[in-house]
Amino acid sequence: MFGFLMYPGFEELDLVGPWEMATMWHAYAAGPACVTVAQSSGPVRAAKGLQAAADVGFSACPTLDYLLVPGGFAAFDVMKDPATLDFVRARSATARAVLSVCTGSFILAAAGVLRPGMRAATHWKGVGRLRAMGIDVAETRWMRDGTVWSSAGVSAGMDLLLAFIAHAAGEAAAGIVQLNAEYFPDPRCYGGANRDPQATAYIRSLA
Amino acid sequence: MFGFLMYPGFEELDLVGPWEMATMWHAYAAGPACVTVAQSSGPVRAAKGLQAAADVGFSACPTLDYLLVPGGFAAFDVMKDPATLDFVRARSATARAVLSVCTGSFILAAAGVLRPGMRAATHWKGVGRLRAMGIDVAETRWMRDGTVWSSAGVSAGMDLLLAFIAHAAGEAAAGIVQLNAEYFPDPRCYGGANRDPQATAYIRSLA
Repeated sequence: MFGFLMYPGFEELDLVGPWEMATMWHAYAAGPACVTVAQSSGPVRAAKGLQAAADVGFSACPTLDYLLVPGGFAAFDVMKDPATLDFVRARSATARAVLSVCTGSFILAAAGVLRPGMRAATHWKGVGRLRAMGIDVAETRWMRDGTVWSSAGVSAGMDLLLAFIAHAAGEAAAGIVQLNAEYFPDPRCYGGANRDPQATAYIRSLA
Repeated sequence: MFGFLMYPGFEELDLVGPWEMATMWHAYAAGPACVTVAQSSGPVRAAKGLQAAADVGFSACPTLDYLLVPGGFAAFDVMKDPATLDFVRARSATARAVLSVCTGSFILAAAGVLRPGMRAATHWKGVGRLRAMGIDVAETRWMRDGTVWSSAGVSAGMDLLLAFIAHAAGEAAAGIVQLNAEYFPDPRCYGGANRDPQATAYIRSLA
């Protein structure tokens, strides 16, 4: 079972990008079933106002092989929420892998799943703050450190999932997911966005 | 106002990818506010089981400047649903632009918004069937024909939105959205997925 954490203010694409890839893995390439989980089951409003709902609450959540933690500005509030941190810590200890997107890495750090010295990725805006917590932040699209997989901001969770599926189930499975999700993105950079001096190294390296 | 159509079985990323881009446009670059709309307000379960809810029903939906229609296998059911086709037809007639993702183009065709001879994109699996309806299907990531913008499958809606924002509000606005969503995707193709003989021309052209 692959669990997807929801909390008030989670960033929509942080969760739904990986959800689409993981549910395609389940539908077309024998990947695990997927479930959304929050402190309580039921409605959760996301960062940009999308109305979603969690399938199960923490106490009813089945055993998870994998757990994905999305980000959003609200991740900084979740860092102070003991119930969610306890859930993330406990499930990360028994899962085969834990994955974060964007500022979800701050939740993993607050839960002690990402520990000082470990390598991780995050949104380009969060790099300095995560380094201040002792994390060795990689300026890459995604990063793996043992069983902890983390990605850069928002849309990077899709690349993280394809890499993770390739690792867990092989390149052919990842290819089936990529083809069904038609994930062959346009490489265009609009308005020189990639040349922002605050952007991380992998962004600035783009043509 | 930018409306996002929901219906039972809409494909999650078809809607949420564009939603993330459009809400970033609203948050950071003076784009329009965004609203989800379905036949009735309230819960709508998506194709892969994600629980979502629509902000408003058809009758309470405010005037829309833009309307986005997602796809999914359920789009073929929506093609036979007069209430949704009527809504799409009526709102497309007054909106400044209408956009579709994946098999959302079949809904536009059934509503008469995409008419025979017009150019459009769709999921690679749907090309033959859309051509059989007389649509001039482009084997590209996205296509514009007048005020109708359509994209290839699932994840292609994000590229469509960035192109649309660049058109509507300029390259700089699209760049701000791209940077905040950190949409600088990995170009990797897993397991030779891009070489599938059924894939469309732009996919097969990838290295």
